[in-house]
Amino acid sequence: MLRSGIHEEMLKDDVRTRSYRDSIYQNRHIFKDKVVLDVGCGTGILSMFAVRAGAKHVIGVDMSSIIEKAREIVAANGMANKITLLQGKMEEVVLPFPKVDIIISEWMGYFLLYESMLDTVLYARDKYLVPGGKIFPDKATIYLGAIEDGEYKDEKIGFWDNVYGFDYSPMKEIALTEPLVDTVEMRALVTDPCPVLTLDLYTVTPADLAFKVPFQLVARRNDFVHAIIAWFDIDFTACHKPISFSTGPHAKYTHWKQTVFYIRDVLTVEENEVITGHLENKPNEKNKRDLDIKISYKLQTEDPTRYAEGDCEYRM
Amino acid sequence: MLRSGIHEEMLKDDVRTRSYRDSIYQNRHIFKDKVVLDVGCGTGILSMFAVRAGAKHVIGVDMSSIIEKAREIVAANGMANKITLLQGKMEEVVLPFPKVDIIISEWMGYFLLYESMLDTVLYARDKYLVPGGKIFPDKATIYLGAIEDGEYKDEKIGFWDNVYGFDYSPMKEIALTEPLVDTVEMRALVTDPCPVLTLDLYTVTPADLAFKVPFQLVARRNDFVHAIIAWFDIDFTACHKPISFSTGPHAKYTHWKQTVFYIRDVLTVEENEVITGHLENKPNEKNKRDLDIKISYKLQTEDPTRYAEGDCEYRM
Repeated sequence: MLRSGIHEEMLKDDVRTRSYRDSIYQNRHIFKDKVVLDVGCGTGILSMFAVRAGAKHVIGVDMSSIIEKAREIVAANGMANKITLLQGKMEEVVLPFPKVDIIISEWMGYFLLYESMLDTVLYARDKYLVPGGKIFPDKATIYLGAIEDGEYKDEKIGFWDNVYGFDYSPMKEIALTEPLVDTVEMRALVTDPCPVLTLDLYTVTPADLAFKVPFQLVARRNDFVHAIIAWFDIDFTACHKPISFSTGPHAKYTHWKQTVFYIRDVLTVEENEVITGHLENKPNEKNKRDLDIKISYKLQTEDPTRYAEGDCEYRM
Repeated sequence: MLRSGIHEEMLKDDVRTRSYRDSIYQNRHIFKDKVVLDVGCGTGILSMFAVRAGAKHVIGVDMSSIIEKAREIVAANGMANKITLLQGKMEEVVLPFPKVDIIISEWMGYFLLYESMLDTVLYARDKYLVPGGKIFPDKATIYLGAIEDGEYKDEKIGFWDNVYGFDYSPMKEIALTEPLVDTVEMRALVTDPCPVLTLDLYTVTPADLAFKVPFQLVARRNDFVHAIIAWFDIDFTACHKPISFSTGPHAKYTHWKQTVFYIRDVLTVEENEVITGHLENKPNEKNKRDLDIKISYKLQTEDPTRYAEGDCEYRM
């Protein structure tokens, strides 16, 4: 069943939609007379931006039956002869042009990669993009930080210790493996942000989406750490004047929010101490759309009473 | 994939969980030494309430793999010998007792009937409940009211008139067919509530869940009407002292919230004028879990400039 809610949420995400609009409208010299491919076009907003920016023709591809609505919308805006909309998998649809000059796509999921369409964008890039063609956006960076979140951790995790007088600890084990997509207040951030992975969309391959990367988080004050959080920044570097946006706790709200990974321990950190560790991510073997995520951490401290290290596994 | 969130939300719905707990704990004389069937037992909370109230044995049935966690939880609380947990469809599982004395179930969905398990409860009643057996709860009543909701209607429906300069009216048509599950403030209610349907769980049949019932809403002030809302009350009449709860806008928050049906018109109503109409509901033919809902309305007024009538179809 077609639902308007998800499209409403995405379109109303002003940070997201404006960044795409600006990166297209401000670069008419790049879009003028070009053939553009919109991967996962949804209601067709990016395709229409590209037409307004002077594109010769836009091809929008989406697996969902939303494409029927996109056709009505494109027609209502007098662009039916400028936009070809195809329902199906990128691997199966037949494009009206052998090659495209520009790929535009809003492919990002929660934690950047959860239920993302990046695989499809890369397939389209390898099959259809002309040499020297542009990708909008073309850079994505994942960041980590550590937060104090005692109250909410207790509400989400501690809750299971006593549910109406019963021991619900088996549910606690599940809850601890579930990353939480939620807004984190900037003031909860105990450490500096640490960039852990940058994807260059011109060169990244699907194999790169399974990774293990180190991180190093420097505490900015004496506090406790209950969770590691992740977010991402997106860059449109092909623009005349580069455009980017962040989904971090310091930036304006986006529907991606941040992703919270509660750790089993509570770390007691002092200013300038460092939490080192690794972030590991790979698609689940049984269900390729799910992610298996592992975070290992070690609090580097000379105080043996506060030393802590651990390993947590998550599934999203 | 098993997720804790949905169970957390239901258990934390205090109005819901406390009503069940109180109706069971306050009626030990009814539960003592009885065989109890918990239809759609989830994490097993109602089953454990029943054991604490003195039940001889409880059988919990659920299709979801949550039943594995329920087994761990029941064992952690030392009730493994008192509760039998069966994963599967009610129509297919084999119960360890030929008959049960009491059925307990939290089967209600949004709008009472959306993705509800009432069908399953009725099947269990007809097959397993002893003559004179009890059902907790045993009464459900659907209410309607009319609300002023101009600002939010504009945000949800009017939004589609202009999306970043484009005409998105095809999405508006979809949005108008989608009932909205949301909390409505009491002060938005323009009319008296009107009970439209009461289900007696001892006698109702699956055929009764497709219905067409009249309503009559009396305006309590001069105002505008943008939507009809629905909610339900639940009664445990088998209790020594009857227990009930409401999911209406006048009552404490529950996770069922209210269901909002935006109408195409805006009605301009005066105090004591009456909106009459019909609420029609039936399972969708293709997808039995979806509901086709129809609301017709007529503003009874002697002022021809404000006269309005209409028919709206919804799918949820």
